[in-house]
Amino acid sequence: MLSLDDSPGGQDSVRALQWCEQGLRVLDQRRLPAALEYQTCRTAREVAEAIALMRVRGAPAIGIAAAYGVVLAARDRYQDHPGRWKEAVEADLAELARSRPTAVNLFWALDRMRGEIQKAEGDPVAALLQAARAIHDEDVAANRRMGELGADWLAGAEGVLTHCNTGSLATGGYGTALGVIRSARRRGLTAIFATETRPWRQGARLTLWELEQDGIPATLVADSAAAYLMKAGRVQWVVVGADRIAANGDTANKIGTYALAVAARYHGVGFMVVAPTSTIDWRTASGDAIRIEERDPGELLDDHFLRPDSPIAAWNPVFDITPAALIDVIVTERGAIPRPDAAAMGAFRSALAAGPNPAPG
Amino acid sequence: MLSLDDSPGGQDSVRALQWCEQGLRVLDQRRLPAALEYQTCRTAREVAEAIALMRVRGAPAIGIAAAYGVVLAARDRYQDHPGRWKEAVEADLAELARSRPTAVNLFWALDRMRGEIQKAEGDPVAALLQAARAIHDEDVAANRRMGELGADWLAGAEGVLTHCNTGSLATGGYGTALGVIRSARRRGLTAIFATETRPWRQGARLTLWELEQDGIPATLVADSAAAYLMKAGRVQWVVVGADRIAANGDTANKIGTYALAVAARYHGVGFMVVAPTSTIDWRTASGDAIRIEERDPGELLDDHFLRPDSPIAAWNPVFDITPAALIDVIVTERGAIPRPDAAAMGAFRSALAAGPNPAPG
Repeated sequence: MLSLDDSPGGQDSVRALQWCEQGLRVLDQRRLPAALEYQTCRTAREVAEAIALMRVRGAPAIGIAAAYGVVLAARDRYQDHPGRWKEAVEADLAELARSRPTAVNLFWALDRMRGEIQKAEGDPVAALLQAARAIHDEDVAANRRMGELGADWLAGAEGVLTHCNTGSLATGGYGTALGVIRSARRRGLTAIFATETRPWRQGARLTLWELEQDGIPATLVADSAAAYLMKAGRVQWVVVGADRIAANGDTANKIGTYALAVAARYHGVGFMVVAPTSTIDWRTASGDAIRIEERDPGELLDDHFLRPDSPIAAWNPVFDITPAALIDVIVTERGAIPRPDAAAMGAFRSALAAGPNPAPG
Repeated sequence: MLSLDDSPGGQDSVRALQWCEQGLRVLDQRRLPAALEYQTCRTAREVAEAIALMRVRGAPAIGIAAAYGVVLAARDRYQDHPGRWKEAVEADLAELARSRPTAVNLFWALDRMRGEIQKAEGDPVAALLQAARAIHDEDVAANRRMGELGADWLAGAEGVLTHCNTGSLATGGYGTALGVIRSARRRGLTAIFATETRPWRQGARLTLWELEQDGIPATLVADSAAAYLMKAGRVQWVVVGADRIAANGDTANKIGTYALAVAARYHGVGFMVVAPTSTIDWRTASGDAIRIEERDPGELLDDHFLRPDSPIAAWNPVFDITPAALIDVIVTERGAIPRPDAAAMGAFRSALAAGPNPAPG
């Protein structure tokens, strides 16, 4: 089931989300790499659960899964109430929207599917499935485009470091930051380093697994060793994804991204954010306005300390905010934004509205 | 067995090393906090094994354990060959010296015990035990002195961050960096943050456990969250220990120390190294001359990747080198060295030879 290699240059064999007759087939990312297990979500509720329980993760993948979830919702609602399914399906959209708070792609995908619902006449399933597949296909195409644009920036780099998982598992396929690394590797990049990414270890479990599936050599480092790796001169760029980009370029991404940006600036190492334009939240002026999700302290603390009378606590933010000033370039499917700030982002936004590729660099 | 509270202000109840009739009683630090298990080392070989297997860890504690190991060696060798035990015991000293490569305190303690061996006449056990106990007691006294000196520097700080474990578990008692934090807490420090310290999680397991034993509140953060904690303004100082300090002040310490020093400098947060003068290796000119121990990639990699044909590797340095230029102050039991560099360290060394407390600051 993993041999869905449809990339031009090979090296992209993993697909975490696959539509089938019964519903949406989801690769359970919590069990990797020890176990390769799929679950088929047959209802919108099961899709929402898969997102909430982090079987599906990664901002673009969450949006795509939610779009397929809308197809399942419409299938059920139309079968039950062909005359008034459009009202009933709103409850499913709301449930999908609640599944994860930070990923702006989720709301973007649901809005787009809502537009298709409004247009639908008669049995909506075929049209909605076509729309969900389009979101999925467009994501892969956007990732390929970002991969090539980002790889232009990495020209001459011998080593790059990435954080968390931003690859085929986190997207429709190919990946954002990891897509750039895939493209750069085809052009001669030799050394790929991945951080462990505590506490969920998305780098150690998912990025390494996905690269291994494609036969791409990579080296794991502890999160705390990344700065020392830079000092040793072994990486020239840090390449990361984004969960949300504010209108001034401030970027919310997995906890630890900010530490890498600070270390990169100190060592003169480049820092690149790779994300589709659907990740940019133009209504959020700056990173200060992004509320940071905090997760269970039990993800960090040993069970021994999880008692009401313990003086021991944990601070477990899921994301951090990297100020735009620490970012050398944001790469999107519509072009790159060097030295992002409010003015550069605004100019990019205006150009986005005007033409197909506002910033080809 | 843990109620050995002998500190003036309380809050120092843990002792990892305890001499008893049978030998050296060692708290197995690999099992904490899930299990509290002691092992009694009855021979020098068992002490060397306890160090090599990291049941005993922390540069000062390793030196103390090795000193007690010499007592056990002398006891056995004298019993077997009262006439030529001094020659035979050299094999035990060599075995103890091989147990861990980086801790300079180990060699320092063995040298001091070798001096006692040379002086010994007749049954050496009582005199050697007295010498080992003196090393142990002097370490605790040095830690208390460093605690007070370091706390002077932290005056006004509301929050501090520490890395790895440098407390009673890592020393004879009280701790180096954690001793400074103990002293500062008695003077009103409110917020203590500990990094997880991957891959062995000494912060998450040992520092939290030891503070919990003393009822001291502390908050765990992922290694990758430390920079973001500084950005949030929640810590004014980072306080760490050292495995080896070069003659110019460059400091080898647990991997991740360098990343914290870079982030501290970027945020204007103070950076303090706390270590006894026995940790200074005057024969090593700078950090460039310190070989960094690398451990098993399996400490970071999932079992899935530990196959000969896997393209996945790990880079797992145990220590890193923090350049003296990133250190605001080194605190020793003989005084503090602000803004350490080769000149300041040299002046401190000269003063060390001249008087009891060269740098009272």
